[in-house]
Amino acid sequence: MTAYTIDFEPVGRRGQCQDGKSLLDCARQLGVDIVSLCAARGTCHACKVKVLAGAVSETTASEREVFSSQELAGGWRLACQTYPTSDVRVSVPAESMTTPQRTQVEGLEITVRPEPPVHAYQVKLPAPSLSDLRSDSERLLETLNQQHQLHCSTIDIDVLRQLSPQLRSWKWQCQVTVRDDEVVALNPWPSRQLGLAIDLGTTKVAGYLASLSDGQTLAAQGIMNPQISYGEDIISRITHAIDSPIEGKRLQRLAIESINQLATDLCARVDARADEITEAVVVGNTAMHHLLVGLPVAQLAHSPFVPAVSQAVDIKARDLGLHITPGAYTHLLPNIAGFVGADHVAMLLATGVWPAEGVAEGVVVAIDIGTNTEVSLIDGGKITTVSCASGPAFEGGHIKDGMRAAHGAIERLQIAGADIQYQTIEGAPPVGLCGSGILDAIAQLYLAEIIDDGGRMKDNHPHIRTRKKQREFVLVSEEERDGQPAITITQPDIRELQLAKAAIRTGIQVLLEANQRTEEEIEQVVIAGAFGSYIDVDSAITIGMLPSLPLDRFRQVGNAAGMGAKLALISCRKRAEAQAVASRVNYIELASAPDFMHTFIQASSLGRYRMVHGKRKEIS
Amino acid sequence: MTAYTIDFEPVGRRGQCQDGKSLLDCARQLGVDIVSLCAARGTCHACKVKVLAGAVSETTASEREVFSSQELAGGWRLACQTYPTSDVRVSVPAESMTTPQRTQVEGLEITVRPEPPVHAYQVKLPAPSLSDLRSDSERLLETLNQQHQLHCSTIDIDVLRQLSPQLRSWKWQCQVTVRDDEVVALNPWPSRQLGLAIDLGTTKVAGYLASLSDGQTLAAQGIMNPQISYGEDIISRITHAIDSPIEGKRLQRLAIESINQLATDLCARVDARADEITEAVVVGNTAMHHLLVGLPVAQLAHSPFVPAVSQAVDIKARDLGLHITPGAYTHLLPNIAGFVGADHVAMLLATGVWPAEGVAEGVVVAIDIGTNTEVSLIDGGKITTVSCASGPAFEGGHIKDGMRAAHGAIERLQIAGADIQYQTIEGAPPVGLCGSGILDAIAQLYLAEIIDDGGRMKDNHPHIRTRKKQREFVLVSEEERDGQPAITITQPDIRELQLAKAAIRTGIQVLLEANQRTEEEIEQVVIAGAFGSYIDVDSAITIGMLPSLPLDRFRQVGNAAGMGAKLALISCRKRAEAQAVASRVNYIELASAPDFMHTFIQASSLGRYRMVHGKRKEIS
Repeated sequence: MTAYTIDFEPVGRRGQCQDGKSLLDCARQLGVDIVSLCAARGTCHACKVKVLAGAVSETTASEREVFSSQELAGGWRLACQTYPTSDVRVSVPAESMTTPQRTQVEGLEITVRPEPPVHAYQVKLPAPSLSDLRSDSERLLETLNQQHQLHCSTIDIDVLRQLSPQLRSWKWQCQVTVRDDEVVALNPWPSRQLGLAIDLGTTKVAGYLASLSDGQTLAAQGIMNPQISYGEDIISRITHAIDSPIEGKRLQRLAIESINQLATDLCARVDARADEITEAVVVGNTAMHHLLVGLPVAQLAHSPFVPAVSQAVDIKARDLGLHITPGAYTHLLPNIAGFVGADHVAMLLATGVWPAEGVAEGVVVAIDIGTNTEVSLIDGGKITTVSCASGPAFEGGHIKDGMRAAHGAIERLQIAGADIQYQTIEGAPPVGLCGSGILDAIAQLYLAEIIDDGGRMKDNHPHIRTRKKQREFVLVSEEERDGQPAITITQPDIRELQLAKAAIRTGIQVLLEANQRTEEEIEQVVIAGAFGSYIDVDSAITIGMLPSLPLDRFRQVGNAAGMGAKLALISCRKRAEAQAVASRVNYIELASAPDFMHTFIQASSLGRYRMVHGKRKEIS
Repeated sequence: MTAYTIDFEPVGRRGQCQDGKSLLDCARQLGVDIVSLCAARGTCHACKVKVLAGAVSETTASEREVFSSQELAGGWRLACQTYPTSDVRVSVPAESMTTPQRTQVEGLEITVRPEPPVHAYQVKLPAPSLSDLRSDSERLLETLNQQHQLHCSTIDIDVLRQLSPQLRSWKWQCQVTVRDDEVVALNPWPSRQLGLAIDLGTTKVAGYLASLSDGQTLAAQGIMNPQISYGEDIISRITHAIDSPIEGKRLQRLAIESINQLATDLCARVDARADEITEAVVVGNTAMHHLLVGLPVAQLAHSPFVPAVSQAVDIKARDLGLHITPGAYTHLLPNIAGFVGADHVAMLLATGVWPAEGVAEGVVVAIDIGTNTEVSLIDGGKITTVSCASGPAFEGGHIKDGMRAAHGAIERLQIAGADIQYQTIEGAPPVGLCGSGILDAIAQLYLAEIIDDGGRMKDNHPHIRTRKKQREFVLVSEEERDGQPAITITQPDIRELQLAKAAIRTGIQVLLEANQRTEEEIEQVVIAGAFGSYIDVDSAITIGMLPSLPLDRFRQVGNAAGMGAKLALISCRKRAEAQAVASRVNYIELASAPDFMHTFIQASSLGRYRMVHGKRKEIS
């Protein structure tokens, strides 16, 4: 088959690509993370690239829709619509890349003593002879048990199927991987002993390749969740899966493929073989968990919203379709409830808010902010958890100029009189607001008394204008954007954020009341997740989303779920701890909490602060 | 899709058949066992049928080769080459049917107390509510464990995947099947609790459907092993699998399909669903075992001929591709050696020659005669086993007029002077000799002193003639067959049988010597298997194949392997006993036995009897 050489600039990746693959396929294959939200259908227009040299396929209708003829003449194309017909050199603009500083693979790096569930042993076997006619399996088990004082009794069926030729071609010496009393992998001696931890997020999928012998993270990578073409939020994906079993299968396959892609990419980085991965751990919210495993999701969509499975599940890699050692197990951490999944358990595990040994002093609140926000309150030996439907506002959804945390997004903002100062991701010209920018904007508008407690926008500032019968506050004007549409905060944007912050605040309030605690008694607030890591806590306090506590009581911990997955991967003790945490949780269905509506309405009020002489003051 | 109604006469089966299926496919689907040895390629000409009414596809070249134009005009066709194009009525002549009395599904029916590895429980669950938010899996396990005092901890992944909708559609009442601490099946309450036992023979596959609750056999059926199109003997199938992994896969698929076909047919007979089968047991020789599981067979073909696996294996039905409850296990009894498989273990189990409790008195020999003959000698607490390459003579192979035990085969024969008396299967006109007929013929020729101790045919009888430079003895002449070729025993036929009987006799002799026992000390000889059940033991003694002992010491037990499989299916104690038997066996590789060649040459001599005044006399 014909293959072309493709150069991706400025990332500097180059490699062979089969004829018939699109530039997007090539990019993915070479580890160049180009954004694509529409499953390569040419509709999201996110994968813009510029062909610098070489021949490619004709332009398609959707490309002629996006680009001017001048742009097309200049080589601009959609990567998903363009097929190389010769060696090609391509430039990928920053806005088409998934921004690396936002992939959320970093997080706490906690060191635990490795106690992996699998162990590898070197085994040297005597060859069979007329005086030693033991079967290959018996020979392996007996030699393994004898040389290493084990009590292994079974061999995975896929290992069995390869056993005879492998032992012979490796001259009766091999590396045997054992889990409990089962041989799950056979490799040449010596091979590495690797594990894969996956945080399967609704938006991003983060993967960590770890050495099971010393617990080190060897490589980490984040990619977009390809299910995003079925909708950015969980509910639309669940709806797809309920409507049609085939779509459910497709969603499952997309999730599995994304994990397989991560496994391949991570292995390539450290020059490892995928069959050296002998254990995997996956965490995700309950819906992602169910879609991945192929569990039904209909019961997640209707009250009382119960998961099909809550306890931890071990599935053979082959039963999931993961391309690691087929006899390896994939361990899925336990779920707590329909809307509180294994990712929250992993987060609690990684942040150590519920210490395994003994009982911590004081009250801790752990929050994972997203479209759905999980909040746990840890009080001595008790964990109480709620789930709040905070909506997509923090991810830029339902906000007029909202966008994901990507190149050109306003992430910080200050209003001082008529002067508006902002900072964008990578310092690029502003194109919209990401979650932390929206939060700052509302907080600043509120402090400046441009919006009132109820969230109503006044008409007391030169930047306020009315468009389509709605008031809006201009952050970046048309002039500043060379004639492109202004970036503004509208009245509906404020309402959207009010709903989001009210949901979270209600959750915290319900937890405090259930535990008969007050806000002041919270000793620590741990904030995890993609959005939570980048917000300005001060702004969140200002609008009353987070409790009004000294800033040193807040801890922003990055992708704690991924780190929890890694801990559970390398340590059986941590895995048991996760199960203990999950079964210890007292889950409260928010809607059934006493006074829920009353609390919610109170929580939607913006806050109790004003700027007085340039300082934020509590007005009570 | 169009479907036609097909009537099969005279068996009286009628049913719907999809357009595009051959008459052979239809017959199989309706449980009409038409012989086919060539995988429906039109080359074996075994599936002759007569179309009585209705329209079918045009004749093919291979049909025009077999049938005269007159026969074609009369409706004669090959079932594998003929496709209905309307409703059709078909007559299946007896010679095209696998003869029911030879399917070898009958055998010992031993009654054991049912102690199946799976148990079914009725469970009534509380429905979830806002005050009981347990996940479906947790709810099921907790209710099951509580209502039945169990300690179940895991649920099979396929059960998990169906759990949520099934519990809801069954209104929170179900039948749960448990194996050890795992839920392997979920059915509506009440469902049957069925098990499938399979004897996967080289030629025939026998299936038994049993009730796991009371141990009763509900239905039994035998079909041809479809692998037969890859050669009738094991070695040619192994060779195919070694030469090409694809052929190996095909052989595996054929074996699996034959089991699935049996499962479907057996269920249809008792109006059961295949998903009510919650456990299966399969026995077969080591090669059939390996081909079924997808294990490599190369090491079986080369000295020292070791199996990939000897200990018992439990495989999920889905990992094998069996169409029973996907979470059910298939238990494969242990193998003993490369040429002594689980079928021999099953036979030892069923015949009770190695009693579980205590140690039997006296010496017992257990023989399973086939292309490969396994012989075990049980002496007190010891079992010694050999495998003898007895060749295909007993199945009619390599014998000029040899044939399988089917319609028209001579199965008994006597020579009294010039008078030859014989009996054929179903009393049909003779068409050849099956194994027992060949054995009788050689014994009678020997007793009549027509052949000498060394097996040389004399020229002292009117039925002896020379054809193609070979002497032959005419059993049924051309005249008696209305001009069709005579049925004869040739000098090479005698040599072939001599080799076969020498192999078996050598095996017995080596076992006696290894145990320092003499022939006279054998208290019982158990003969199992298709051929062994029908032979005249007296003839076998005459030619020196079996030891010269009083006839009341011989026991012909039919398909003991199938019965052993059934015992292991319904009883965990019997399953453990099988493992104990297998690991107790001292296997002797015949070629490595001292004096092997000497013993073999001695054993090829025909015997020490002559007819004296009409009676068999030992001449020493």
